[in-house]
Amino acid sequence: MEFKVNSKELEKLLGKIIPAVPTRTPMPILENFLFEVKDGLLTIYATDLEISLKSSLSIATEDNVKLVVPARLLNDIVRSLSDTTIHFKLTSNKKINLITDTGKYVISYLNPDEFPDIPSVTEDKDVKDINEVVINGVELKQAFEKTSFAMSKEEMRPAMMGTLFEFTDDGLRFVTTDGHRLVNMLKKNIKANFNQQYVVPERAVSVLLKILDEKDVKIYLTKSYVSFKLNDIELITRLIAQKYPDYNSVIPLENEFALKINTKDIHNSIKRMMLFSTSTTRRVKFSIKKESLEISAEDLDIGASGEEKVVCEYSGDDLEIGFNSAYVNDVLNHMSDNEEIIFKLHSPTKAVIIEPVVKKENQDLMMLLMPVRLNT
Amino acid sequence: MEFKVNSKELEKLLGKIIPAVPTRTPMPILENFLFEVKDGLLTIYATDLEISLKSSLSIATEDNVKLVVPARLLNDIVRSLSDTTIHFKLTSNKKINLITDTGKYVISYLNPDEFPDIPSVTEDKDVKDINEVVINGVELKQAFEKTSFAMSKEEMRPAMMGTLFEFTDDGLRFVTTDGHRLVNMLKKNIKANFNQQYVVPERAVSVLLKILDEKDVKIYLTKSYVSFKLNDIELITRLIAQKYPDYNSVIPLENEFALKINTKDIHNSIKRMMLFSTSTTRRVKFSIKKESLEISAEDLDIGASGEEKVVCEYSGDDLEIGFNSAYVNDVLNHMSDNEEIIFKLHSPTKAVIIEPVVKKENQDLMMLLMPVRLNT
Repeated sequence: MEFKVNSKELEKLLGKIIPAVPTRTPMPILENFLFEVKDGLLTIYATDLEISLKSSLSIATEDNVKLVVPARLLNDIVRSLSDTTIHFKLTSNKKINLITDTGKYVISYLNPDEFPDIPSVTEDKDVKDINEVVINGVELKQAFEKTSFAMSKEEMRPAMMGTLFEFTDDGLRFVTTDGHRLVNMLKKNIKANFNQQYVVPERAVSVLLKILDEKDVKIYLTKSYVSFKLNDIELITRLIAQKYPDYNSVIPLENEFALKINTKDIHNSIKRMMLFSTSTTRRVKFSIKKESLEISAEDLDIGASGEEKVVCEYSGDDLEIGFNSAYVNDVLNHMSDNEEIIFKLHSPTKAVIIEPVVKKENQDLMMLLMPVRLNT
Repeated sequence: MEFKVNSKELEKLLGKIIPAVPTRTPMPILENFLFEVKDGLLTIYATDLEISLKSSLSIATEDNVKLVVPARLLNDIVRSLSDTTIHFKLTSNKKINLITDTGKYVISYLNPDEFPDIPSVTEDKDVKDINEVVINGVELKQAFEKTSFAMSKEEMRPAMMGTLFEFTDDGLRFVTTDGHRLVNMLKKNIKANFNQQYVVPERAVSVLLKILDEKDVKIYLTKSYVSFKLNDIELITRLIAQKYPDYNSVIPLENEFALKINTKDIHNSIKRMMLFSTSTTRRVKFSIKKESLEISAEDLDIGASGEEKVVCEYSGDDLEIGFNSAYVNDVLNHMSDNEEIIFKLHSPTKAVIIEPVVKKENQDLMMLLMPVRLNT
């Protein structure tokens, strides 16, 4: 069994698949690629049991074979080679020889039977009720970039460890929350012929963020799995099998006080206040009066404090409200620095809504922040 | 007591001094700057007891004062401000108020008596026998860049944890070694009116690498301390009070076999071999014949190996010799990729000399590498 492949083509392919290889795993077999050579096509798979990536490359060979090869070592070898032809040759003692014009590298391979099955969403004829939708890669990437930060890291509520994809008549809604903050982004121009909720796990989102480009993505959704088909690569992920919390119930409707402010101004101020809000509460205080927002923080341990005035427009009653400064910073990191935003408030204990003043076409973006108590 | 200072000027000043502030120290006082305001000059000091940095800035004030202020917090606050005037105001309760147009920041200060004394090399009239020399900043930086990697991290032999400055009639020689490799660089154009050895500790070298620029450096050397005076900043370091080992005794004289090779070719090959030389020995084998160098490595634990041929010119007997691949890589990292180098060899157990084929003007550079056994 042997085949030849160009080093740079293989490097590109492996670079796309390796994000699915787990860095620490109790199952060492997952630190490998599955190589499948069939009818002149080399398909490479990797999985961490939650997500799988696969991609293919045409090669000139008559043989069909399946092998399991050490992922990082092979990736490192191929990346370190200059543009050359690599001649893969299997030897009888479970070794693969990689031969180039100037060198020979030997790695061991394992039995493919030990490698877990990769689920297939589109090719499995037993799977019924597949929903399909096409989303532009840039749009999907932007939606993840704006929303992914608010996913929960707490295993107590598994659904919140993912991103909600909610297909509605109004468009596709992305929701993330960890109970302290929530992001709700509606993409009005992404329409599907079905209404349904899916919860995509964090790891799938973070890997997609690495591999999405400007090309369209075909998405196939079943009850248990979703497949993202990019141009030359497919990511399949388990869906989180828990119902997403009713996010609408936490979005306040009567927040009648409006604070309009330049994002960059308040963001710079919050970054400075984070230097002082270093105690366990990480609290920053907003003292809001007409046309004047005073932001302050205090670190009692080291006897340091800061306070700043930021120009704003405010319509509402005078209000003092506290936030976790890191959470405010997260929200502001995901707003555009050169736009104005509006804080919609009601009282020191009620969730605050933060939105851009000027809405983007086809897009509603709303962030929500829970306040923290001031008198502790 | 109060004074005003521009935020950007202060930011620049603090940025130069903060490298001397230790990151972990059993003496919390060292995590502070010493501020000394005297006759309209603000001088800022930091020290880790081994090295000290100081720099000054003219300010408009009538008062004289000494304060100890938290270094990282102040540096972070000043860096986070836009270009503005900071008004420093001391309050009666051991606080400093930093007031700008839009904000007020309060930090605590400490008693200056607790801050260690900063040694002075040039101003102390008790110090006799000061040697002086001027070196261009770029030349000094290049010498450190080529030599610093080989300093020892082992506390067993303190002298080897520094860089030897050897002033001779031939010029200034820099030597570093950890017993496994040695770098010997002679700068023929740096002449002094004295012949003497000084051992400068690693931390002084690494901080100097950060702050040296194209300007001349005035160096004042005593028996115990050396002062590096850059344009607007002074670094004072303790010298290592141990005699440097006799490096000449380890440099072989009769290495009559010469291997001439392109640096980039062998460097790329070594980087690939490092993927296979991952066991405890990290061994890479050179099999040298006329016009052919074969480099190989083997990782028995994972059953992987690599071998490559690199074009070379060789005059000498056929030879097999082993090296620590990481040490070979270190040496090659400090040769220019686009030049040819020569390995001077004698036998599998004798130190190897590595030099550039074409010498730079006014500069002799020699690296030395101890081989490792092949038959273990």
